[in-house]
Amino acid sequence: MSENQTETIKRLKDIDSPADLKGLSIKALEELAQEIRRTIIETVSRTGGHLAPSLGVVELTLALHYVFDAPRDKIIWDVGHQSYAHKLITGRRERFHTLRTLGGISGFPKRAESPYDTFDTGHSSTSISAGLGIATALKVHGDRHKVVAVIGDGSMTAGMAFEGLNQAGHTESDLIVVLNDNDMSISPNVGAISSFLSRKMTGRRFVGMKKDLENFIRSLPGVGESVMNLVRKSEDSFMTFFTPGMLFEAFKFKYIGPINGHRLDRLIEAFENTKHLEGPVLVHALTVKGKGYGPAEKDPCHYHGVGCFEIATGTLLSGAAKPAPTYTEIFGRTMTELGAREEQLFAITAAMPEGTGLVEFAEKYPARFMDVGIAEQHAVTFAAGLSTEGLRPVVAIYSTFLQRAYDQIIHDVCLPNLPVVFAIDRGGLVGEDGPTHHGLFDLGYLRMLPNMTVMAPKDENELRHMLYTALKHAGPVAVRYPRAAGTGVTIEEDFRLIEIGRGELLREGGDLLIVAVGSMVAPSVAAAELLQEKGIAAGVFNARFVKPLDGRIADLAETCGHVLVVEENVRYGGFGSAVLELLNDKGLYAVRVKRIGLPDRFIEHGPAAVLRERCGLSVKGIAAEALAWRMGKGEPTGG
Amino acid sequence: MSENQTETIKRLKDIDSPADLKGLSIKALEELAQEIRRTIIETVSRTGGHLAPSLGVVELTLALHYVFDAPRDKIIWDVGHQSYAHKLITGRRERFHTLRTLGGISGFPKRAESPYDTFDTGHSSTSISAGLGIATALKVHGDRHKVVAVIGDGSMTAGMAFEGLNQAGHTESDLIVVLNDNDMSISPNVGAISSFLSRKMTGRRFVGMKKDLENFIRSLPGVGESVMNLVRKSEDSFMTFFTPGMLFEAFKFKYIGPINGHRLDRLIEAFENTKHLEGPVLVHALTVKGKGYGPAEKDPCHYHGVGCFEIATGTLLSGAAKPAPTYTEIFGRTMTELGAREEQLFAITAAMPEGTGLVEFAEKYPARFMDVGIAEQHAVTFAAGLSTEGLRPVVAIYSTFLQRAYDQIIHDVCLPNLPVVFAIDRGGLVGEDGPTHHGLFDLGYLRMLPNMTVMAPKDENELRHMLYTALKHAGPVAVRYPRAAGTGVTIEEDFRLIEIGRGELLREGGDLLIVAVGSMVAPSVAAAELLQEKGIAAGVFNARFVKPLDGRIADLAETCGHVLVVEENVRYGGFGSAVLELLNDKGLYAVRVKRIGLPDRFIEHGPAAVLRERCGLSVKGIAAEALAWRMGKGEPTGG
Repeated sequence: MSENQTETIKRLKDIDSPADLKGLSIKALEELAQEIRRTIIETVSRTGGHLAPSLGVVELTLALHYVFDAPRDKIIWDVGHQSYAHKLITGRRERFHTLRTLGGISGFPKRAESPYDTFDTGHSSTSISAGLGIATALKVHGDRHKVVAVIGDGSMTAGMAFEGLNQAGHTESDLIVVLNDNDMSISPNVGAISSFLSRKMTGRRFVGMKKDLENFIRSLPGVGESVMNLVRKSEDSFMTFFTPGMLFEAFKFKYIGPINGHRLDRLIEAFENTKHLEGPVLVHALTVKGKGYGPAEKDPCHYHGVGCFEIATGTLLSGAAKPAPTYTEIFGRTMTELGAREEQLFAITAAMPEGTGLVEFAEKYPARFMDVGIAEQHAVTFAAGLSTEGLRPVVAIYSTFLQRAYDQIIHDVCLPNLPVVFAIDRGGLVGEDGPTHHGLFDLGYLRMLPNMTVMAPKDENELRHMLYTALKHAGPVAVRYPRAAGTGVTIEEDFRLIEIGRGELLREGGDLLIVAVGSMVAPSVAAAELLQEKGIAAGVFNARFVKPLDGRIADLAETCGHVLVVEENVRYGGFGSAVLELLNDKGLYAVRVKRIGLPDRFIEHGPAAVLRERCGLSVKGIAAEALAWRMGKGEPTGG
Repeated sequence: MSENQTETIKRLKDIDSPADLKGLSIKALEELAQEIRRTIIETVSRTGGHLAPSLGVVELTLALHYVFDAPRDKIIWDVGHQSYAHKLITGRRERFHTLRTLGGISGFPKRAESPYDTFDTGHSSTSISAGLGIATALKVHGDRHKVVAVIGDGSMTAGMAFEGLNQAGHTESDLIVVLNDNDMSISPNVGAISSFLSRKMTGRRFVGMKKDLENFIRSLPGVGESVMNLVRKSEDSFMTFFTPGMLFEAFKFKYIGPINGHRLDRLIEAFENTKHLEGPVLVHALTVKGKGYGPAEKDPCHYHGVGCFEIATGTLLSGAAKPAPTYTEIFGRTMTELGAREEQLFAITAAMPEGTGLVEFAEKYPARFMDVGIAEQHAVTFAAGLSTEGLRPVVAIYSTFLQRAYDQIIHDVCLPNLPVVFAIDRGGLVGEDGPTHHGLFDLGYLRMLPNMTVMAPKDENELRHMLYTALKHAGPVAVRYPRAAGTGVTIEEDFRLIEIGRGELLREGGDLLIVAVGSMVAPSVAAAELLQEKGIAAGVFNARFVKPLDGRIADLAETCGHVLVVEENVRYGGFGSAVLELLNDKGLYAVRVKRIGLPDRFIEHGPAAVLRERCGLSVKGIAAEALAWRMGKGEPTGG
């Protein structure tokens, strides 16, 4: 593009790719930033999405694409929930209104969606490792393009980010890490490093450093003592001397910053300087989460990820009237109740006090609550430690994030058979957040572990009783529930022990036995009612336990002869396979089994109900499968 | 014990518990240390074990137990392979000769074995998290006993240790972390932090810090510039000023050290001082891996974990003549060969270049090799990054340690369907290292993942062909092989593509079809020969693929009617379940299946062959199971 065009191109509609940014004036870029911000607010107010993270990095995104030459230079967005501005200026402007809708563009970077999306993200803290891999590959290929990983300070609390930093510094790789420091992950950050970065430095932690420095200065021949007197008079300079930069220097990174992350001129200057450096560089940008939208700036935690809202006021629109409290809410309330009864109860979250429903518990029992930050591995082993001293820890982590702690579950909890309870929220399909966030594997990867008990409640009350039961059990227990409203049952005040490994027969029927677990119990009961109308008598068994399985499933199956197993988990290795194993181990070869569950592919984003429908996990889908199978009821059951 | 006894008790035979150490003189403790060292060398020369790590911490162990009051004070040994001295002085002296033998004491701390073993370890980097959990529990209970986590500098490279440090500093917990700094993990350490700790500081990384400090000193009113001139003349003091302490201070730890980790007087003094401090404290002890045994000091990597050896010379005794090269060796050689053919091949290890057989590859192709340190999560996502730029990464990690990277396998490799190859050594039972090191779950936890291909070779050549095939495949592939000698077949020079999802019928037989995978194929063939003698005609199918399964298994099963599935993996969710699923999905209800595999419990330590025998995974065991099942061949196959 020619020079004299630069001042005229400044509307988002003119930006088809980052090339259209080159040569724009700072003022034009600033105006563009405001337009992008408005577009994001308008779109997310209709689609829901990660509002505050994306608003915080509009200038950062423009500056990166202004200076670097994507997609030849590689920009990786850690977590990726802040990539909306990036999407808007990399050829997806026209489709942006489809954000997070079925068939529309994803809320996260996807290589399949655009060549500008260098690496698929969704979970936190992968960008430094991925960036280091890409930088290493470029080096092998003799390609001198740049690799930039943009990571939030919240993501820095995960061990994986540390592993990446450590390696980048060691290999002196050409990697630029942009630290997007907003002093928040989803909730305010925790962790020593976070407060170190946040510049809210208090004197305490510097005592040791100060002493070292004092001794050093004193040791300077001749002038030491007199300098020290001066130093003591200037405590302020002393404090500011210990910058975050020193931490990254210890990792062999060159440190640039901190920079105001909403000043395009400063950002561009910093990136221009960075571009010509070799070896690992860290650019520290200070941003405001939710920047430019009053309600989100004021409450970035609430506006981290939102549903639809009214732009003028920020009021969240609840859409259809909420049928019942969510499982998350029931979990939270139950924990608060149990906290009063069970003095040894201790609750742990990994940076998700709101998401997991533990805010009230945390307020009521601060000494028995810990937010460990984005650190699932540590969360689980920390819980194991607590349990060895008689506490009863409940670790509340989303299904998809619990994958991060698989080894800790095996090695630190199951092997020593410690009584740690895993409250697994978001089991199954989660909807608009899509494939990185669906929780599709937990029933399978947990049930194969010795000593582990795996439960899933059919409704709110069962969730309550299962938590109560789990806290009485002398070994590890997982309780898995969906991201969904409850069934709306009346909440029972009392808690009840559920016998370990005992399900319940909810409905009798001789033509077919539906064995369902967790979120699939209610649709199975409804499907049985539909089947009744078609002349098929279907029994329904609520398994409750994926492990140990209720042996009565085998007896009922033998009697009925036909079993339809239904689960919201992958079919390979899941609950249905557990039922096959049970029948196989009992030698019940004559029983015919069909398994409904999630297919062997990753599931796209979209409304959870629609996704379930597509996978056959709806009332209609279950009934249709049963009907197709049992229409000719008379076929032989044997060999 | 009375004061006047203290000088007489100095023999190991008098130490029944740490209480017997109290009041001993330094000299007596030093003599005891030498006796402990001799006992460890003598025992390990007969049993094999982790020699070098345990020799490095004899004084550290005595000092800790001298100062602290275990088991009320809690001592946690990270990894735990250095706990031999601890075991010797905590009531297990008499049983120490049974170390790592079947039914004998474990090579790692086990709560079930002794109240002095605070936390079960085996995998690295869990001790800070566990210790923090224990310290938090003690605080809740108002118990003021101390918690000490002893962690090596190698273990510090794992992100999990960082997560623990970060949390401990944040909560200002009463936790003492003893950094056992020997500048090694199993192999020499890698990573920026490691070289930071190792005091081999070069000027480069201090440039930034120096500049900051210079600017600060210059800014001191009046004397700044002249001080700087002095500083410049004393670069040495400048270097030593930036101590490891500063790093830990950034995490809000009080830092004590570095201390000579073989000087009992210094260690005891440091721990005595530490005992009365509140908040997180880090004691930095410098130790020599293999200390006190010449061969181990000289080559601590080789003597990290050893088999039997001759004490005088350190010569390893090979025991029974080695039947064939190990799978590890075959993997290593094959990688070196493939490295010459495939220019895009890139090999990654997580601190195990020797253990995984990659030393030769690393020497030949240094630009295409990376040891990331103990950082499995990073290793996998780093590989994913490499693969996005056209390289063909092979990540070689032991089965049990790959559990640490489960989320990265799912989220960063399978979801974007990237061509990363996982070379999974130590799949199945590993023997004397026991339950923390057996690789029992991989077939199950990998086969449930969309886009993943899971193979296991029946012999050395198949391992070679599978690696070759994996590198041609356009998606993630896992190749899983055992810790064992190969079958001794002649190595084929050429590489052959194996059709994805295609097994092979090795032997026909109409009474029974044995479907085996990986390490269980050879014993299954031998079992079929035994069965032949008993009049049972058993076919054997080498599945090769756990995913995708060869559909012909279903056809053969239907023809034969009886299928015995054999795998060295847990039965729940494993290969046998995959076969059940296949037959179920094809509606082959009439086929009778039995599954042989590992039971639903953790398996103890002991000789791998004996453990396999006990689990029915031997030639005899497989034949016996088949025989018991098929003796009355005539029973009806249907309903």
